Amino acid sequence: MSGNGQHTHGNGAGANGNGYKVPTGRAEWIVKRKAEAERTGDWNMSQMHFARKGLITEEMAFVAQKEKISAELVRSEVAKGTMIIPANINHVELEPMAIGVESLCKINANIGNSALVSNVDEELRKLHTAVHFGADTVMDLSTGGDIPMIREQILRHSPVPIGTVPLYEALSRVKRVEDLNIDLYLEVIEEQAQQGVDYFTIHAGVLIQYVPLVAKRITGIVSRGGAIMAQWMTAHHKQNFLYENFDRITKVMAKYDVSYSLGDGLRPGCVADASDEAQFAELKTLGELTRQAWKSDVQVMIEGPGHVPMDKIKEQVDKEVELCDGAPFYVLGPLVTDIAPGYDHITSAIGAAMIGWHGAAMLCYVTPKEHLGLPNEKDVKDGIIAYKIAAHAADIARHRPGARDRDDAISHARYTFDWDKQFALSLDPDTARGMHDETLPDDYYKEAAFCSMCGPKFCSMNWSSKVDEFNAKEHGLKKPDLTQIVTEQMALRS
Amino acid sequence: MSGNGQHTHGNGAGANGNGYKVPTGRAEWIVKRKAEAERTGDWNMSQMHFARKGLITEEMAFVAQKEKISAELVRSEVAKGTMIIPANINHVELEPMAIGVESLCKINANIGNSALVSNVDEELRKLHTAVHFGADTVMDLSTGGDIPMIREQILRHSPVPIGTVPLYEALSRVKRVEDLNIDLYLEVIEEQAQQGVDYFTIHAGVLIQYVPLVAKRITGIVSRGGAIMAQWMTAHHKQNFLYENFDRITKVMAKYDVSYSLGDGLRPGCVADASDEAQFAELKTLGELTRQAWKSDVQVMIEGPGHVPMDKIKEQVDKEVELCDGAPFYVLGPLVTDIAPGYDHITSAIGAAMIGWHGAAMLCYVTPKEHLGLPNEKDVKDGIIAYKIAAHAADIARHRPGARDRDDAISHARYTFDWDKQFALSLDPDTARGMHDETLPDDYYKEAAFCSMCGPKFCSMNWSSKVDEFNAKEHGLKKPDLTQIVTEQMALRS
Ligand code: SF4
Ligand code: SF4
Repeated sequence: MSGNGQHTHGNGAGANGNGYKVPTGRAEWIVKRKAEAERTGDWNMSQMHFARKGLITEEMAFVAQKEKISAELVRSEVAKGTMIIPANINHVELEPMAIGVESLCKINANIGNSALVSNVDEELRKLHTAVHFGADTVMDLSTGGDIPMIREQILRHSPVPIGTVPLYEALSRVKRVEDLNIDLYLEVIEEQAQQGVDYFTIHAGVLIQYVPLVAKRITGIVSRGGAIMAQWMTAHHKQNFLYENFDRITKVMAKYDVSYSLGDGLRPGCVADASDEAQFAELKTLGELTRQAWKSDVQVMIEGPGHVPMDKIKEQVDKEVELCDGAPFYVLGPLVTDIAPGYDHITSAIGAAMIGWHGAAMLCYVTPKEHLGLPNEKDVKDGIIAYKIAAHAADIARHRPGARDRDDAISHARYTFDWDKQFALSLDPDTARGMHDETLPDDYYKEAAFCSMCGPKFCSMNWSSKVDEFNAKEHGLKKPDLTQIVTEQMALRS
Repeated sequence: MSGNGQHTHGNGAGANGNGYKVPTGRAEWIVKRKAEAERTGDWNMSQMHFARKGLITEEMAFVAQKEKISAELVRSEVAKGTMIIPANINHVELEPMAIGVESLCKINANIGNSALVSNVDEELRKLHTAVHFGADTVMDLSTGGDIPMIREQILRHSPVPIGTVPLYEALSRVKRVEDLNIDLYLEVIEEQAQQGVDYFTIHAGVLIQYVPLVAKRITGIVSRGGAIMAQWMTAHHKQNFLYENFDRITKVMAKYDVSYSLGDGLRPGCVADASDEAQFAELKTLGELTRQAWKSDVQVMIEGPGHVPMDKIKEQVDKEVELCDGAPFYVLGPLVTDIAPGYDHITSAIGAAMIGWHGAAMLCYVTPKEHLGLPNEKDVKDGIIAYKIAAHAADIARHRPGARDRDDAISHARYTFDWDKQFALSLDPDTARGMHDETLPDDYYKEAAFCSMCGPKFCSMNWSSKVDEFNAKEHGLKKPDLTQIVTEQMALRS
C-alpha cells in the first residue's frame, strides 16, 4: 500500500474495480511543484489553482486514466469546481482520485475511535478492510485517545484520501465547548494539514440565525459538528467563528491543497425533518462559502443528508446544484426510513443509490451499527459492500461509460454455469462462494448446470440453454458474444 | 396462528405493524356463502364477484379495518380489479389481507424446498420466521420431496395467503417437460385449490412467438415456469397450453376463489436484459389475460421483474398499469445491479423500494442466497427485513396515511435517549439491542444520553438538547409533542 511500485487494490474490489496502477513518485511531483513555488512565490498548491492556470497536473492525468476520460475534461471540471481531486501535498502515499459528476460515483467509509472504544490497531484493520473492499476515501473521525497519533498511522498507511473533522480534535483539547476559539482551530488545522489530511469537514454554514429553525424538529441537530457549533453560538450569543474566519481557514487549505468538505451541520436526523427550512437555509450559506473558497482556488465539496424519504431525494440534488453551483455533492446515506436500527446500511443504501443516480458525486457509507454504537471491522465491511452496490447501481443508471461491463460479465458467467468466474467477478467472492458451497461444496458442482436453489430438474437457466439451441437451429439466432468483456473484467480482478 | 381467537403477529413486526386482530370464524362465513350458492346456483366464490354485485364481504370489512380505509373503498377497488384479496374459501386459517395501490405496500416471502434440500420442519420454521418478521404472503415453491404434504402443513399453519406455482408439481409428476399437458395441469390445480392455496402463479403469457425474442439476451429465460413452458413449446412446436386453455383454468380459480398471479416468464435475468421486447410483449399478453379473467370475476395480479437498472424502474410500473389496466403489480426485487451475489437482498431492496414508491402493490423478497442456493431460515429473515424496509419506505414516499408514525415515534425515542423504546419500535428489536449492548451492556446505559458511537462528550443529540433549552428560553420555541404517536405505536407492538 505504499506510493511506489505497481499493484491493484485487494481482490480488485477496490476503487470501482478499475484495476488502476499506483503512480510512482508522487513525492517527486510535489518537490518539483515546491521548487516552482519557490521561484514564483505562488504557494497556492491546490489542484484547482493549477487547473485554472490551464495546467494538467500528474494527479489529473492519473485520474483521467483511471476514469477513462480525457485529462482535459478532468482539468476543466476541476477548474470549474464541479470535480475535486482531494490530494494534500503531504499525503504522498496517495493514489489520486476524483470526486465529481463526470467521474464514477465514489464511496467514503468513516472509521475512527470514540472515547469509549479506542485502539489504533483496530482502526488500521478497519482502514485495510475499507480499502480492500473498495472505499474511495476514508474519514478518520476519532474523538478519543491519541488523536494525532492514530491519524498519522492512518495517513501513512492509506492510498486513499483521508478526511477529518478538525473540530473534534479542537474540542478534545479544551474542557468545554465554550472554550473553543478560532486560534485553537487554526492551530489544529495547520497541524492536520501538515500531516497530510486531504479534506476537512468544516461546519461554517451553521449560522446563529438558523438555530431557532431547528426547534420544530423531532431530532434537532444530529451532526456532531453542527451541534457543537450551535452550542458554542448559543453559549456566547455570537456568530459561528468558522464562518467569521472563513478566509483565514481558506489560506491554510490553499497552502497544502486540503479540500473543503462543507459540513451540513443542520442535516435532518429523521425522515420527518428532511428538506426543512433549517436545512436549506444552511445549504444556501454553503453555496456562498463555496464561491468564497473558489476565489482562492480552493477545492470544495458539499455535504448532504442524512435521512430523506424517497420522494424528496431528487430535490436534494437539484437544490444543491442550484445553490452551490454544482460543487460535488457528498451525501451521508440518506436513510429512507428510521425504523430499522441494526440495518441502516440497507435503509441508507436505498437512498444512496437513488441520490447517486440523481447526481451525488460521493456517498458516505452508513454501517449496520449506526445510531447504536461504534462500528467494528465487520460493520465496516458490511457498510462498504452496501455502498459499493449503491454507487455501482448509480453508475449504471447514469449510463457512465463501461459501468455495466462487470454486470454483463458476471451475468454471462452465471448463465453459462461458470461458477468460479461468477464468484471472482463478485463484490465479495468469498461470501458468494461460501453461500454456494453451504449445500454443494464439492468441486464437481463448480461446473454443474444447476445449484441447490432449484435443483437440476428445475434450473431455469439449464432449460433456457435448450431454448437457445432451438432459436439457433430454427431461427438462426445467436447469443451475443461476451468473451471480450468477460476477459477484460476477469483481468481487472486477477 | 389459527383462525380463531385474538392475537397480533409476533412482536408486532407483522403485517406492517398494524397490530390487527385475527377474525373469528372465517369457516362460518364460507359455510354461509356455500348455502347461498346452493340456493342460487351461483358458485363463483371470488371476492371480485361479490364486490361487483355490490356486496361487502367479511374479508373486505376486515381488510378495511386493517388498512384504515373504508370498506366501500375496498369493495370498489376489488370490483375494479385494482385490489385483490387472495382468500381461497378452503384456507380458513387465513387472516384476510389486500394487495393493491390503495392499501399498504405488501411483501411476499418464498419458501419451499428443492430436490436437493428437503425437510418439512425446516419449511415450517421458515414460514414461522417469515410471518413473525412481517411477510404479508408466502409462496411455497417446493419442487422436491412430498410436495402436497409440505403444502398441506404450510397451509394449515399459515395466517397469511399462500401462493404456489402449480407447474412445479405438474412437472414433478412426469418424467420429461415434454410430457406436461393440460389435463394433468387441471388435475393439479384442482387439488391445490381444494387444499386452500390462495394464489397461483401461472405462466400463460409466454407465447411461442416470443421465444425468438430472447435470443439476444445475456441470460435468456430465468423464470423457472417461463423456461419450462418455452422448452415445452419448442419441443412440441405448439402454443403455450396454459394460454390455449385459459378459460378452463379460470373456472377452477372462480370456484375456490384462487387469485391469478400472472407469471412473467420472460422477466429479465440481468440488468442488460431489462425492459426488452420479449418482456413487454409478454406483459401485453398478460394484460389481455387479465381482462379475460375479469370477465369471470376472477382476481388477478401481475408479476414483474427481476433485474432492472434504476433509470428504468418507473417505466416498468407505467407500462404495467397501461397494459394491464392497473391490476396489482407484484414484483420480484428488482435487483439494480448483478455484481453482488451474496447480497442480493440489498441490490434488490433498492429496486423494490423504488418500484413500491412508483406503485407496485407487493414486493417479492430476494434473499442473500439468491443465485447461489436454497435459502435457509437466516436467509429468510434477512430477506424479510430488507423487504419490510423497502415496503415501508415506499409507503412513506407515497404518503400513505399514518405511514410515517412509526418513524416519528422511533426518532423521538432516539432523540430523548429512550433506548428501550427505540429497540421496541424497531423492525428487529433483538438485533438493535444486541448491537447497542455490544459495547455498553449495562442497564445503566439504557438511559444514558450517548452511546459508544460518539461517546458522551461528542454525542450530538446530547448537545442538541441544550440548544433546545436555548430556543425555549430565548425564543419561546417548543419541540413538537409526540407523546400520542409514541404511545399508539408502542401499544401496537406490545
Ligand atoms: S438452480 Fe436456479 S438459482 Fe441455481 S443456477 Fe439454476 S436457475 Fe440459477
Ligand atoms: S453518541 Fe452519537 S450515535 Fe450515540 S446517541 Fe449520541 S449522537 Fe447518537
